[in-house]
Order: sequence, then structure tokens, then C-alpha cells
Amino acid sequence: MPRTYGTTHSSMAEFNRSRIVQILHTQGTRSRAQLARQLHLTPAAITKITANLIEANIIEETGAIDGLMQRRSIGLQLNNQAWHVIGIKIARSSVTLAIFDVRGQIQHQHTIEHIHESDVQDICQTIKTAVFTMLQNDPSIKAIGIAVPGPYLRNEGRIALATSVSGWQSINFKSEFAQSFPVPTLIEHDARAGAVAQSLFGTFENLPDTSPSTHGSHTIKQANTNYLAYYLLGEGVGLGIISDGILLSGTLGTSTELGHVSIDVHGRPCECGNYGCLETYCSAAAVHQTMMNHSSYFLKHYQVDPQTLTHEQAASWLIAHYPSDDSCITDIMTSAYEAIAYGCVSIINAFNPSIIVLGDTLAQGGDALLSTITHICKQRVLPELWQSTHIVTSHLHVDATLLGAGAIATQELLAHPSSVMQHP
Amino acid sequence: MPRTYGTTHSSMAEFNRSRIVQILHTQGTRSRAQLARQLHLTPAAITKITANLIEANIIEETGAIDGLMQRRSIGLQLNNQAWHVIGIKIARSSVTLAIFDVRGQIQHQHTIEHIHESDVQDICQTIKTAVFTMLQNDPSIKAIGIAVPGPYLRNEGRIALATSVSGWQSINFKSEFAQSFPVPTLIEHDARAGAVAQSLFGTFENLPDTSPSTHGSHTIKQANTNYLAYYLLGEGVGLGIISDGILLSGTLGTSTELGHVSIDVHGRPCECGNYGCLETYCSAAAVHQTMMNHSSYFLKHYQVDPQTLTHEQAASWLIAHYPSDDSCITDIMTSAYEAIAYGCVSIINAFNPSIIVLGDTLAQGGDALLSTITHICKQRVLPELWQSTHIVTSHLHVDATLLGAGAIATQELLAHPSSVMQHP
Repeated sequence: MPRTYGTTHSSMAEFNRSRIVQILHTQGTRSRAQLARQLHLTPAAITKITANLIEANIIEETGAIDGLMQRRSIGLQLNNQAWHVIGIKIARSSVTLAIFDVRGQIQHQHTIEHIHESDVQDICQTIKTAVFTMLQNDPSIKAIGIAVPGPYLRNEGRIALATSVSGWQSINFKSEFAQSFPVPTLIEHDARAGAVAQSLFGTFENLPDTSPSTHGSHTIKQANTNYLAYYLLGEGVGLGIISDGILLSGTLGTSTELGHVSIDVHGRPCECGNYGCLETYCSAAAVHQTMMNHSSYFLKHYQVDPQTLTHEQAASWLIAHYPSDDSCITDIMTSAYEAIAYGCVSIINAFNPSIIVLGDTLAQGGDALLSTITHICKQRVLPELWQSTHIVTSHLHVDATLLGAGAIATQELLAHPSSVMQHP
Repeated sequence: MPRTYGTTHSSMAEFNRSRIVQILHTQGTRSRAQLARQLHLTPAAITKITANLIEANIIEETGAIDGLMQRRSIGLQLNNQAWHVIGIKIARSSVTLAIFDVRGQIQHQHTIEHIHESDVQDICQTIKTAVFTMLQNDPSIKAIGIAVPGPYLRNEGRIALATSVSGWQSINFKSEFAQSFPVPTLIEHDARAGAVAQSLFGTFENLPDTSPSTHGSHTIKQANTNYLAYYLLGEGVGLGIISDGILLSGTLGTSTELGHVSIDVHGRPCECGNYGCLETYCSAAAVHQTMMNHSSYFLKHYQVDPQTLTHEQAASWLIAHYPSDDSCITDIMTSAYEAIAYGCVSIINAFNPSIIVLGDTLAQGGDALLSTITHICKQRVLPELWQSTHIVTSHLHVDATLLGAGAIATQELLAHPSSVMQHP
């Protein structure tokens, strides 16, 4: 059963408003004639809807632009001040709040650090107070997005796998936050929020061609951001998939849990009960663990005590020292990068995205990582599939999960412009 | 960007017609008042749209039914004779054509057998001739669906992996069939077509509770067929996923290729270039290969020569002889069923369906198979996820791929009722 847009005249009007603000958000400035052509609407309908949106300060006229048939016409663009949103990133031991404008630019940022397991209930109160202060100081805030670690049970409102996220499993995010504020509040899993951030705010033009065809010629193909994978390589391993323009969630909101898809059913035991989970090979926590297994070696040769590092610090240290003549570092990082590549092979076969964006700590591996991925994917993926898959590292100006929290709020407003218009 | 229904008044009308026929297809008889409530439309709008559909013989009035507030009202139902569709199943060495009615009941069936690699071009001509004869004899045929083995590159119209499907890789199905007939012709990958068949024609009421909660109590939950996985265990291993009511395809139409998702990255080499592909452990071809590795044993003890069997015959023979005291048979089947179970674990973590339907040859394993799956999933899947996943074997009255071919044609007509109305 398709979605329920467009079943009555008023929802049809909202749907058309939404399509216009989405086009202006993605594609920049457009004339009324261009919009009419693109949306198969009459010029009269476009004039009416855009007048409505201009009056509500959601879109604005620019100067003359080049239009159809060499004629100059007035451009329309999204008003950068149309609204602000709050993005909240919940991490293991910190919470970051930020205010974003329509374009995903940070207006304000605030981090609560050193959160201990026993504090989380108090921290929820601190978050609420901070949000109410922000709402009071900035009436243009129209929606809030919260990104949480996963697997996150969307319907229930809580995190399913307890141990990896310290105290947060005791929180029901839905009952705690979903109805607490006077603006729409959305809660989403971190990697999924990251996928929305990439899709709304990522730029994927002039992509390098990572996949020369088997015939030796190079075919540069345009990435289709309607089929995008965001592959989160942080403390855990996560995945967000946009397929045909829609974020995949699953019946409980726990689909695309790539970190717990096994790459070796007889491999390492994982906290989730499964064996050989991808996460046990290439998360920052996993490489940190391997480093700690060789603590005395790193102390002796590098005067670094892995025990004193966070997962992120350990992974970043290793990445900075690789490629290396040191066979211990080489072993650790080669294995991790190969596991990341096996994850790419699974992503391509399971989800067939046009573009895979690597993000978070391990994505700092850059060229060394990308060349391992290219090497393994060329071996293990059908040529037709590999040739049409772009793999890039994230180029967002801000942490993808934090921007992702803002992005799910932004997406809500783009889908329902009237929620901004009704509260001017 | 959401789908493009409902952008103009005429497409809104078509969308509302489509929603009505879809509800009547899924839910049976409904009164006008019930439809109005369910679709948030006015009684006047419902009266107008249904009059239109009745006039075109797509729906019909039944006797009085129990309506809202104990009042009796006239029921509406889909006219079983509203249209027929043709479903065509392309298999390795055979092609089956069938005519289905609105409810998926076979009206006519015809199989072309013993196809050799060199024949496929001629067979395409034979298929076309057969279809034209069917269209001529039955003017109520309004759409055609073709199910092909995969990975199938939807945009290009051809099968990507050559060797497993003999001569068919030389055929461009799109240029061969998509525009050849006077009615809409849809081409889809076999497991994906099977998923549509399960979603349109499967019945999933009174499901057994395969997932007792960890607390010992049994919670029978309703399956949500908007999140359905069809797990095809035939000559190859395939998967079709319906997520939020929509069939997942991927940018080239090759997503959900579970057969080529590795369960052991250092495992058996696969024709696709990958190692440890699920398909190399639990397809009918894989168990047949293992059986052939012990040919002399089966000849001696059972007077069966595995070399003379087809993959399907070999798999069916083994299934019929298991559970067994014979350790050779036990080893082969235990390994295969465990691999199928590992596939279920990957499906749950990757796609989070509400229901997984096992279909084709290996699904005949019945209780022995289901108990292996239950045992492994209880160990390896997070309890919250396992408790809300139903796993059943297919109960369709006809081969899921053949019915699937009919189902994609049926789905097209349910989505665009005017295509039936315009050609009365």
C-alpha cells in the first residue's frame, strides 16, 4: 500500500508544497517555469503555491536567472532563515546538542562530556533544560532530531543491545523525549541519521572513479543519491541505507544492522549472541582490543600504553602510523581494513547502493583503506555491480551523526512545510 | 523525494481508485462507509469513485454486510473476473506460462521443457507466439509478468551471472519482451517476484509461535506483511524483501542477493568471485554437489546414482531420507539446514522483517528444517528481534515464482486500475 500523501485536496496541496521545498533544498535556485515543468503542474498552480510559501518566508525570490528558451526569469530559493532545527547526538559517554540552519550550517554547539552510567537519568533532565533554553532564545527552531546508538527499537523507544552503550539502555527515549517539546521531535538510530545527513547535505559531484571496467576503459558514472549507504565505522559498526529515496527501517526499526551480520559464522563471539559479527573485526573497539592484546609491545616500542586510550584514540593512533614497516601495526590494520572491505562486499550484494559513504573514526584511513576496499571488491563483486558502485569517505563539515540528528528534523520540515507555516 | 502519485487531480483520482481496489484485494468485502473511514475520504468521494469502478466491472456489490454501528450496508468486493494476467516463469531448462485470475487462481498452464542452451533464442519466439495466442483467446488479460533468475540487471534487462543460468544470459529480456505485447509487461527477478506473490496471495493467520520469549511465556504476535522476506531455497538461494510495503530493488535491481552474501569470507569459492557465499552451502545445487562427492556410497547403500539426478531430485531425495541414522546423510543435511539458519540470522539483522517465508525445494525440509532454524536463531539473534520474527514455509497453492510472475502483473493493475478501465 503506497504512502498516504495526496488522498485529499489539502494533503495534495501539502504534498506539492513539500516537493517544491525539497527541489529547492536539493537543487538550489529554480524559476517558476522550471518547477512547473519538473513537477508536471500548471504555471497557475506553481504561482499559487509559491506565493503561499513566499508569504510564510520559507522561500524567497532571487534576481533574474537564465530560464527556459534563453529567457531570463525570477529565481526562487529556500530562505536560509526559514527555520532552525536542533540536533542531539547521544553517544556512549557524551551528548552533543547543536542548532542548524536550513543548509545544515551549525549556529550553536554544546557538549556534555564524561557521562557515567549512573548519570543518564539526570542527563536527560539536563538535555531537556538545554533544549527549552534554546527554544526560548531562538523561536525559529521548528523541529528536533535525536540520534541514538543501536540496535534501536523504534516502536518501543529503547536500545536493544545493552552493554555497548553503558547506561543508556535504561532510558526509554520515546517516552522521555518524543512529546516533551512544543515542536516535532524525531528519534533515529545513529547510522541511519548519518545516511539522511549524507543524502540531504552531502556533495557527490566529480567522484573519483574507483571502479575501472574490466575492459580497461574508465567509465565515470553519476552517483544516484537515491540509493545511498552510510557505512559508520566508529566505536561500533553501523549502516544506514537510503533505497529509492527512502530510509530503510524494518518492522522494529532495526534493519541494516550490518555490524551484526556475520562474515564468519564460526568466528569471534559477539555480545549479541552471534559469531563472526563484522563489528568484532573492524570497529574502533575491536582494533583497540587487538592493540591491547599487544600492550607490552606498544609500550616498549612506542611508549604508548593502549590501556589508557579510548577506543577512538587507539584507532586514530593506529591509522596515523599506517602504512608502516612495523609488522604488528600492519597486521592489525590490514585485518581491520580487509574486514571493512568484506563489509562493502556484503553491502553491495545485500543493498545494491549507487554510493557507499564511509564515515566516523576508521574512515580516516583514507587512501590506504580505499585501496584495500578496491582490491577486495574487484575480486569479490560481480563486475557489473562493482562498476556502478562509488565508494567515498564522508566529506561533511561536521560529525555525520550530529548533523544526522539535525537532518532527520530538517527532513520532517521539508516533508511537512505547513508545520512551519502554521507556527509563524 | 517521495513518489509521484497525487500531484494533479487526475493522478489523485487514480491513486484513490488504486487504494480502494488494493484494500478490497487484501481485505475482502468492505462497505462504502468502511472505505471512507479507512481512506479518510468523504462518503461523496467514495460513492463517486466506486460508481466508476463498478461501471468498469472492476468491483461489484455484494449483499448486505454488517457495517459500522450495527447497521447493515451493501458490501463491495473486487470482481474476480475483473481481469486476467499472464505469469511466465523462466527457469534454467524450462519455461512455464500460466493465466491467473484476480485472486491468483490458475486458469490455464503450459510448460516448455528440456530447453538447451542453444535454444533460448527460438524459445523466446515460442513464448511470444504462445502469449499472442493467449491474448487472442482471452481478451480479459490485461498485464504480463515475467520472472527470471538472477542477479538480474533491471535497467539493462539482462542476467548478470552467466554460468548458473545456461543460455539465458545471452537474452536481453527488456528489449525482447517489455514492448512486444499490447498490454503492460513487467520483468522481475524470481525471488523478488516470489515475495510479491507471498505478499499478495499468502495467508499468514494463526501463525505458530516459533519464538517463545526468554521469560518462558509465549507471545503470539500478528505478522506484519508490510515487512516480509521471501527466502528462496531452490537451485540457487535468493531473497525478496518487502519493506514498509515496498519491494526492495537497489540501484540496478540487484539488491537482496542473499545467495552471494558471504557467511565465511575464507570459505568456499563462488562463481561470482566471492568466497563463502551462502548459496555454496545450502542451494539444491550445493547439496547435490556434496552428494556427488559421495557417489559410490549412495550407489552401494541406496542403489542411487547422484550423477543421474537433477539438483532438485537430489535435494528432494536427501530431504525425504532425513532425519536418518545414516551419518553421511545426516552430515549433509545438518550442514545445509544450519547454513539456511545462518541465512535467517543475516536476514533478520540486515532487513528486520516481521515474517520470513521459506520457499522452493529445500523448504520441503519442514519441521526438521524449522527446528534447526529455531535452535540457531535463538542462540544468535537478539531476543527482542527473534521474538518478533515469524518463520514459516510457503503455503501457496502454486510454485511461488510462477505465481510471482502473475503477482507482479496483478500488482501493476492494482496500482493503475485505469489501465484496465481504458481497455474494456
